[in-house]
Amino acid sequence: MNAHTTLFVCTTCRAGQAVAEGDVAPGAALAAALSQAGAPDGVRIQPTECLSACTNGCSIALARPGSWTYVYGRLTQADVSDILTGAAAYAQSEDGIVPWRARPTIFRKQSIARIPPLELS
Amino acid sequence: MNAHTTLFVCTTCRAGQAVAEGDVAPGAALAAALSQAGAPDGVRIQPTECLSACTNGCSIALARPGSWTYVYGRLTQADVSDILTGAAAYAQSEDGIVPWRARPTIFRKQSIARIPPLELS
Repeated sequence: MNAHTTLFVCTTCRAGQAVAEGDVAPGAALAAALSQAGAPDGVRIQPTECLSACTNGCSIALARPGSWTYVYGRLTQADVSDILTGAAAYAQSEDGIVPWRARPTIFRKQSIARIPPLELS
Repeated sequence: MNAHTTLFVCTTCRAGQAVAEGDVAPGAALAAALSQAGAPDGVRIQPTECLSACTNGCSIALARPGSWTYVYGRLTQADVSDILTGAAAYAQSEDGIVPWRARPTIFRKQSIARIPPLELS
């Protein structure tokens, strides 16, 4: 567990809704709620413009050099606590793979994709 | 463009089909077809067990240290040539972001997710 974990949060996500000018997009609201709740140890929250998972918004990704990357979707502000619990478990894992039973339900059921660690050679 | 590009191909993908015992899963067949066609310069094809994009199979991911990661889905063996063309363009890009017009149609329309480069600090 050398490097920090990054929790990317798509801020442009409209979650399939029409967002009136001046209103906060659901993705930006989720990012703000996560930041306000506070990142767990070893996790940095990084608001990001478009994770290209628009049909599954709101979406987040958990990544760390040398570990598996996970992308989750169909998230709302009701999921803030579970997202942060899952991010903490990811940060504490060896390789990004959290034992199935230790994953929040949203992480078990709302996976969009995962990507293996990159070899740096 | 220091490091090589990895083209992950999900080999366990059944693409929503029932696969009889002994038959080759669509994902494994796609991986074999890509390997047979040959990886472009700077690209390594890495067959992978489960990219967790099962509802959008067959799926692939393009990744390189310091670059954006892209995940694409709903691919078939008919897409082998376009996948390799897109992988070559990715490998030649600075940061993994290929100009929109230079992307194969499957990469424009079948994105599952993209993940920003990781800061290694």
